[in-house]
Amino acid sequence: MTIVTVRRVAVLGSGVIGTSIALALRHRGVHVDLADRDPAVVAEAVRLGAGQAWADGAPPADVVVIATPPSAVVTVLREAQRLRMGTVYTDVASAKAQIIALAELTGCDLAAYVPGHPMGGRELSGPSAARADLFIGRPWALCPHPATGRATLRAVTDLVALCGAEPRLIPAEVHDRAVAAVSHAPHLVSCAIAAHFQETDQATLSLAGKGLQDMTRIAAGAPHLWRDILQHNAGQVAAVLETIVADLSQAAAALRGCDPGARDALNDLLVRGARGHRQIAEQRGPSPVEQLGPDTPDVLEIG
Amino acid sequence: MTIVTVRRVAVLGSGVIGTSIALALRHRGVHVDLADRDPAVVAEAVRLGAGQAWADGAPPADVVVIATPPSAVVTVLREAQRLRMGTVYTDVASAKAQIIALAELTGCDLAAYVPGHPMGGRELSGPSAARADLFIGRPWALCPHPATGRATLRAVTDLVALCGAEPRLIPAEVHDRAVAAVSHAPHLVSCAIAAHFQETDQATLSLAGKGLQDMTRIAAGAPHLWRDILQHNAGQVAAVLETIVADLSQAAAALRGCDPGARDALNDLLVRGARGHRQIAEQRGPSPVEQLGPDTPDVLEIG
Repeated sequence: MTIVTVRRVAVLGSGVIGTSIALALRHRGVHVDLADRDPAVVAEAVRLGAGQAWADGAPPADVVVIATPPSAVVTVLREAQRLRMGTVYTDVASAKAQIIALAELTGCDLAAYVPGHPMGGRELSGPSAARADLFIGRPWALCPHPATGRATLRAVTDLVALCGAEPRLIPAEVHDRAVAAVSHAPHLVSCAIAAHFQETDQATLSLAGKGLQDMTRIAAGAPHLWRDILQHNAGQVAAVLETIVADLSQAAAALRGCDPGARDALNDLLVRGARGHRQIAEQRGPSPVEQLGPDTPDVLEIG
Repeated sequence: MTIVTVRRVAVLGSGVIGTSIALALRHRGVHVDLADRDPAVVAEAVRLGAGQAWADGAPPADVVVIATPPSAVVTVLREAQRLRMGTVYTDVASAKAQIIALAELTGCDLAAYVPGHPMGGRELSGPSAARADLFIGRPWALCPHPATGRATLRAVTDLVALCGAEPRLIPAEVHDRAVAAVSHAPHLVSCAIAAHFQETDQATLSLAGKGLQDMTRIAAGAPHLWRDILQHNAGQVAAVLETIVADLSQAAAALRGCDPGARDALNDLLVRGARGHRQIAEQRGPSPVEQLGPDTPDVLEIG
């Protein structure tokens, strides 16, 4: 697959996601300029081979990737468009509808912007946690606005393919509801389990095994970044948490024997859980997009 | 390490735990007799090399391992002691206090019984899911009764060592509280997350990644077995669930913006979760027991 639309990329934000994208693009021979509000972080990313530090007078990028926390995306987008840093813009924030609404409100050029979200990540942060293969075979959601131009979408789809990921076109609201269920609410649930062990005794911890480790792995994520993410998808995440709380409250009542009718609730939750597990385990993503047509992005449209 | 106290073992119950113990013992040259209420399951375990089918007139075992679901343990223990199937008895149920109380009540010979719980397991069930290495390096809780004899404890400790596991002496109540936190409550939480995906759309599932898989893996456990386990540790599990429900309810309220004071609760949960994760990740079990003294079981006493 030869991709000619993406030869020069600017990555704004050199955290684990931005640096991973930069490393993946460098492996495919793309020129990458890196920027971050913290010069030390850019220096680290440069040292890791992720590209070179962005400098005044750099030629405009084919694609500008905004890899900041969600709350900074629109400010950075507007400033980057004002400075004409590139032809096409995308971001990587894990909640989309609120960012799109703010980009509309503040007069960003939406024809040149594709809201995006690579569905890969690590619970570690910073450029040193970056990996060139982080997105290989992973879905990468794209939520184009009605105003988004075809060539704009094409360029961002090409960038996704260069990172080895699978572009998925999905409406922002559908995306946000889905990630609330598969990622954002589970993050808080993982925290609630892990929080229980903050000051636990050694006797308890010494009996822990892989089950607990798996259930608490994602709780390691940086709290300030996660607060930002969750506040950008607040209603959808709250809705998922409320169904989980209802199930667990019923289970606790059944175990307390408070409610004779609740005994069935325990069994019901165990059965539904095992069925849900099967659904998740059986899920196989579609095969990678191998060839994109000249005009029509041949990406899976979902939602 | 030469272990002379355990040369012949009877394993009653040929599920994944019983058959894994039998396989581990066979690898160390121990004679193993197998029994199960379902002859087809015994036949499968025999075929896998876990031992031979128990037959009337078999010589008494040095240790009888009761590897049934919790609700069958005391009935099987009493019957096995009545038949004089062995010298020493242990079980593998994952909740202990209720079983010990019932064994006392029904007049089991407690001097010859060590309540036990190997802290290894699989979400799969049946003899075909058994593995000889399931317990290697894993803790194996032993909750001896005040009436338990020294030689009895010694024999069971030797059996644990033959399986490659690390014996831990722990009071039954401390054990039950610990496993409620590290295993039983997380199982229901995993079910509550997985249940959300029972009838979900493909769009949502196609965005799921390793985080969701990890959070829902243990939900695959057999519902009837888990109901039995949970009902044997009901109060302790309910207490853990109630703290998790409180944390998640507060987080949902914070996200709904219902309560201005609740905004801090979201950050607090994320910070406590990350700290709890560190506690869990830093936990290292003590090194394997390499040598047991001739009389005193050199096992870690916790609680």
